[in-house]
Amino acid sequence: MHGVGPLFTDLYELTMAACYFEHQIDAEATFSLYLRGCPASRNYYVAAGLENALDQLEGYSFSAGDIAYLESTGLFLPRFIDFLEQFQFSGEIVALPEGTIFFPNEPILEVTAPILEAQILETFLLNSIGFATLIATKASRCVCAAAGRPLIDFSLRRTQGQDAGMQVARNTYLAGFAGTSNVLAGKHYGIPISGTMAHSYVTVFDYEKEAFTAYAQIFSDNSVFLIDTYDTLKGARHAVEVALAMQKQNKQLMGVRLDSGDMVKLSRQVRSILDESGLAAVKIFASSSFDEYKIDDVISQGACIDAFGVGTKVGVSADAPYLDIVYKLVRFNDRDIYKLSPGKINLAGSKQIFRRQDANGHMLEDIIGLRNEKIDGTEPMLERVMKKGGRILPGRSLEQIRKDVVGQLAMLDEGYKSIRSKIVFPVTISDALRARQPAS
Amino acid sequence: MHGVGPLFTDLYELTMAACYFEHQIDAEATFSLYLRGCPASRNYYVAAGLENALDQLEGYSFSAGDIAYLESTGLFLPRFIDFLEQFQFSGEIVALPEGTIFFPNEPILEVTAPILEAQILETFLLNSIGFATLIATKASRCVCAAAGRPLIDFSLRRTQGQDAGMQVARNTYLAGFAGTSNVLAGKHYGIPISGTMAHSYVTVFDYEKEAFTAYAQIFSDNSVFLIDTYDTLKGARHAVEVALAMQKQNKQLMGVRLDSGDMVKLSRQVRSILDESGLAAVKIFASSSFDEYKIDDVISQGACIDAFGVGTKVGVSADAPYLDIVYKLVRFNDRDIYKLSPGKINLAGSKQIFRRQDANGHMLEDIIGLRNEKIDGTEPMLERVMKKGGRILPGRSLEQIRKDVVGQLAMLDEGYKSIRSKIVFPVTISDALRARQPAS
Repeated sequence: MHGVGPLFTDLYELTMAACYFEHQIDAEATFSLYLRGCPASRNYYVAAGLENALDQLEGYSFSAGDIAYLESTGLFLPRFIDFLEQFQFSGEIVALPEGTIFFPNEPILEVTAPILEAQILETFLLNSIGFATLIATKASRCVCAAAGRPLIDFSLRRTQGQDAGMQVARNTYLAGFAGTSNVLAGKHYGIPISGTMAHSYVTVFDYEKEAFTAYAQIFSDNSVFLIDTYDTLKGARHAVEVALAMQKQNKQLMGVRLDSGDMVKLSRQVRSILDESGLAAVKIFASSSFDEYKIDDVISQGACIDAFGVGTKVGVSADAPYLDIVYKLVRFNDRDIYKLSPGKINLAGSKQIFRRQDANGHMLEDIIGLRNEKIDGTEPMLERVMKKGGRILPGRSLEQIRKDVVGQLAMLDEGYKSIRSKIVFPVTISDALRARQPAS
Repeated sequence: MHGVGPLFTDLYELTMAACYFEHQIDAEATFSLYLRGCPASRNYYVAAGLENALDQLEGYSFSAGDIAYLESTGLFLPRFIDFLEQFQFSGEIVALPEGTIFFPNEPILEVTAPILEAQILETFLLNSIGFATLIATKASRCVCAAAGRPLIDFSLRRTQGQDAGMQVARNTYLAGFAGTSNVLAGKHYGIPISGTMAHSYVTVFDYEKEAFTAYAQIFSDNSVFLIDTYDTLKGARHAVEVALAMQKQNKQLMGVRLDSGDMVKLSRQVRSILDESGLAAVKIFASSSFDEYKIDDVISQGACIDAFGVGTKVGVSADAPYLDIVYKLVRFNDRDIYKLSPGKINLAGSKQIFRRQDANGHMLEDIIGLRNEKIDGTEPMLERVMKKGGRILPGRSLEQIRKDVVGQLAMLDEGYKSIRSKIVFPVTISDALRARQPAS
């Protein structure tokens, strides 16, 4: 999607900036972006949204139209407006690479810059990183539940707006989905696209079989017939008739799709109908309110489903539709900043995540420490991605990130991948960091 | 936001279109857009998203880049690609005007066009109308709960992406919110913008009072001090000191904001502190996980809150983050189309909503009937908004729609505005429409 620019912000970022400007408060500040709470069902998170955020931050400036609008509000003094006209982000950002597994209270990203600049990024960064991470995490849970079966994003019709539709396609793919129905995401991100027919298509024809035949004539190589418009088992038999006719022309039906009813029972019955006709190679696709829970349920009950279309419930992360993601000032003018909030963890100071792994690479524990600490036998996870307002590392491709997610997930013990049990990964705070916190 | 164009669609819309094209299936079809289910908590819905959808449909065409991408997929025959290159929507759309109150199973919008064209709009229309309606409805519930107190949208940091942030600002305002913190929405839609300071701002100063004074020096006319950074009651007293100093300069503190803690108790204590100092005119704003339920709770428990900042829970409609919105083929080639689905209502045929009101304009019942039926004593609600692919009615301004929502809401009995009780508004089906449905 298009960069929205710095007006995509809460007004208070600009009124605070105006105060800093007018009072010449320009010391360096560090803000830390992290998840405060954690829905009961999430044992781990998958960091996402960074590449998109960095892309938009390069060239983050107020347009002439933005400036004219800000003037028209009458809120700001002319010299501050003049300052904004020249505004560029000149600071430093460290962040978890996209696709990194992380846990609550760990800093996902820290910004260090003159306070005015670092403050102005708040709303934009929270929105960008928060939603992408929400979806990548939800999708990763589905990938775990599907145990190797391909998943396709079908959510576009019910995502929360257009940018969400694009981001869901991208971040479910990042987390291991096989593709999306979203054609624009196919174009923008190079994600494989998938989809064949709706019930409306079947009802346009006088007979279901006629609808299948007409489709196979045009898309012989990759036809998937939707068989539940009238009666799923009759639909399966119609699909068999057309598939056998296709075989005579050396064509192979790719699959059938179930979209309603008892997925366990129907999928097994349909599998039998296909197998009895020598169509063992024809796959069964299923779509119908799937999320990680329903995927797990039908698989554990013996459904014969080869691939899932996953829609609305994942596209809006329905069981937990937002993250408690915050952006907190942790250091200003060379002093640590504390804000004590009952029941909430705020860690002052510039930080780093140190990950300890065993000899095979399995993740053992994370330690949140000071940015420049060294902790033996651990790897620092936050990388510097922006310096003096410019990107340091070249952007990583979506395919590369997707591969890294698979690699990371393999290093996480199976227990944490449970979609139903709450198991807390050990995250501790280093002695050095703890010593810098106020007694509470 | 920018129009996304016709690639913002599920692939199957294009594969079905290819089938229709290759088989020369081009008869006229009518699709009906409606809500199938209804979360237990919603007694009514507020239609939204139409103006934006119609804006994007005008000039809905495949770009050269879109065409090149579709060619690159290898899925489509060249003659179909050539056809898409010339594609324009040439059909008719009837719809509920934005801001209209409606109920489940009522058609919000119907498209009549050659089937290929009507099919291609499906994903786009569901996404556009569904999300806008979701948010306008959630916001309207907050407006009812707030009983006249102003509400400000504070959700931008946690909306599901950037388009969502813009749409939430617009559609909460449409439903009666007083403004938004989203500056870009202020620019795009002319919505009043609002916001002052965050905790980070307060912690930058050595003393809270210093932070307030510095702010008031720059924004004297519309300062709202955030008083809960350290201790809310001490914060209130610091605000009083600064407000009294402002008065000596003939300046008036606008308000204070509470963002944590027991909102009922704290707001009453803060009100006393302000009143005792002769600052009865200083308002108390509150923000902290508010939605319609929490607004209703604190008001009914006697909180002294003059206005609410409403964030995440409304920005993602957290208790019901999607609508079960569907787009069903109801008529094709001069015959009604039925799809019997157990437990679901699908009404074949082109339809109209007829609303019966009493002499004072109060809504009594809705009757879903045939498009061209006449039902005595009722008003047809669906208007023709697009003909031969062009808009008929001039677009209505956001301000006008917002006024219409207020007017509509006044005509709905109070019981339906309850945020906790399920009360079903009477929606019936006309005899003529029922006679056209299959026996089931």
